[in-house]
Amino acid sequence: MENIDAVLAGERLALARMLTEVENDTPQGRAALNALFPRTGRAHLVGVTGAPGTGKSSLVNRLAHAFRHPQDGSEPARVAVVAVDPTSPFTGGALLGDRVRMRDLSGDPGIFIRSMASRGALGGLAMRTAAVVQVLDAAGYEMIFIETVGAGQSEVDIARLAHTTLVVESPGAGDDIQASKAGILEIADILVVNKADRPGADTTERALQAMLGQAQAVSGKHLRKSTPDAAEGETAGWQIPVMRTIAVNGEGTPELAAAIRSHRDYLKESGTWQQRDEMRLKNELDSLLQSTLFARWQESVPRERYQQTLDLLAARSISPLQAVERLLDN
Amino acid sequence: MENIDAVLAGERLALARMLTEVENDTPQGRAALNALFPRTGRAHLVGVTGAPGTGKSSLVNRLAHAFRHPQDGSEPARVAVVAVDPTSPFTGGALLGDRVRMRDLSGDPGIFIRSMASRGALGGLAMRTAAVVQVLDAAGYEMIFIETVGAGQSEVDIARLAHTTLVVESPGAGDDIQASKAGILEIADILVVNKADRPGADTTERALQAMLGQAQAVSGKHLRKSTPDAAEGETAGWQIPVMRTIAVNGEGTPELAAAIRSHRDYLKESGTWQQRDEMRLKNELDSLLQSTLFARWQESVPRERYQQTLDLLAARSISPLQAVERLLDN
Repeated sequence: MENIDAVLAGERLALARMLTEVENDTPQGRAALNALFPRTGRAHLVGVTGAPGTGKSSLVNRLAHAFRHPQDGSEPARVAVVAVDPTSPFTGGALLGDRVRMRDLSGDPGIFIRSMASRGALGGLAMRTAAVVQVLDAAGYEMIFIETVGAGQSEVDIARLAHTTLVVESPGAGDDIQASKAGILEIADILVVNKADRPGADTTERALQAMLGQAQAVSGKHLRKSTPDAAEGETAGWQIPVMRTIAVNGEGTPELAAAIRSHRDYLKESGTWQQRDEMRLKNELDSLLQSTLFARWQESVPRERYQQTLDLLAARSISPLQAVERLLDN
Repeated sequence: MENIDAVLAGERLALARMLTEVENDTPQGRAALNALFPRTGRAHLVGVTGAPGTGKSSLVNRLAHAFRHPQDGSEPARVAVVAVDPTSPFTGGALLGDRVRMRDLSGDPGIFIRSMASRGALGGLAMRTAAVVQVLDAAGYEMIFIETVGAGQSEVDIARLAHTTLVVESPGAGDDIQASKAGILEIADILVVNKADRPGADTTERALQAMLGQAQAVSGKHLRKSTPDAAEGETAGWQIPVMRTIAVNGEGTPELAAAIRSHRDYLKESGTWQQRDEMRLKNELDSLLQSTLFARWQESVPRERYQQTLDLLAARSISPLQAVERLLDN
């Protein structure tokens, strides 16, 4: 297909258009995903998450720069950034975000940035993000940063797409760790205290270290991604580091980039890379199966039958579970 | 059933036990939901959401108190609080949260507090919360606060359970509105600036007012819950207020409680109460259908067949979409 050749040849406009087709789940998008999928599996996927205001976007910009211009003599990587930005539609935030980013990183053909809006696709955001990441992977981007704004269950789901997950904190009031409130600390491979020049950075770092220590003491093993299908102790060899960065001036970002590379090496050597890959694909397959089964069922059931059941439910004549039985076991 | 009678008679221990059964989706829990469902539909469900650190829990405690001890001569309501608290398991945060709350509100049999942890139930949190709320509704709690920590898509999903949704902000750096970043402003019926005695409260309030104005200008109607199934203009009569509170000393909370009552009156008079009720039940029915269809399919498919497909997928021999076709269209 013409558009696929263009994407593989590195044409940015063709790539942007294909991502739109894929995001909108059009027939062209689906065909493109099928054609490109054999070329996926090479990129290092890095999730970056944390509460609003921790400076994640600036940090990702710095990391993109660090992987474009490595100081240790390694090869520059092609870098893509997927910003999952559930910004309110009326602020135009996603678009503005793109513009600001473009200004920082523009002119470099080795960097591609894509913002995704969550609006209008409840529950499907993780799946659409997975598809977008696959296209970028196939298009030859070797480092793909997946940045999520906010801190909730959907952010955790999206972080699960990644090989390496960074959880970003910034110094707050006292030892108030935002990420622990939102339950996202447990998905971290690397913890980052950004804005480390601000008052309270030491307190935040100590609080994170204490939490890591506590987790070890409680569970007898390292705080790790809770992945029920993964082998026990898969990451016994990885010590979660707490890194300090100042994204506005770039301090600490080369060291953070090095830690990301170390984690990649660890994943490859321990076999965890492949485990995470398979788990990610299994999750994606199950999500697709679930939505396809429901869509097919919806097509098969007469509209009036569904509406009658809903009316009985609204009248409290039957419970939701009884409504399901009525519709599936007639 | 004995346990149902005990719950309806107001026995708190029986209620707590039943909620555990319902949360764990046990056969007893399912039977209880079926038996209790005809008694639901009376409670006013109030969602309270916003970024971590905005003081939502303190605010909900104050509101619970305000509805227990109304100053306008109205009847005291029985109040339940469902705290959806995806706190990291190793901190014991949910349990600790309960204890702190209990200390504030203890000794009042008209208040019931329940914390839910998100851990281990990816994607199912909104459904489990809906079930817990139904039991509390049937048990006679007239005001049910559903408090979500964090700010992401799942929090939006949970807020959709409510008749009235409060989005809480606190003064931050400049006009930095956390909720707008996380895309949750659009679900608000009432906006709250908590910690209104802190510097920057005026700026935060003005920024929220400006966003409301902008939304009206852009869309030609009020910023509203985006509910595709709802009639257009359902809430043309509701002006989203921006309220100021200081939860630590209770300032502004009686006024906020009055605004919640006004919203309830508005919903009842405009017919929107019933519309939201039906939409909530439709969402719950569809989620249940989706998970049931998938569970039944999983039971029907031979394990080796699924594993073979997964192996082909991991080898990049077939794409996720082709894997779905292979499994469903054999």
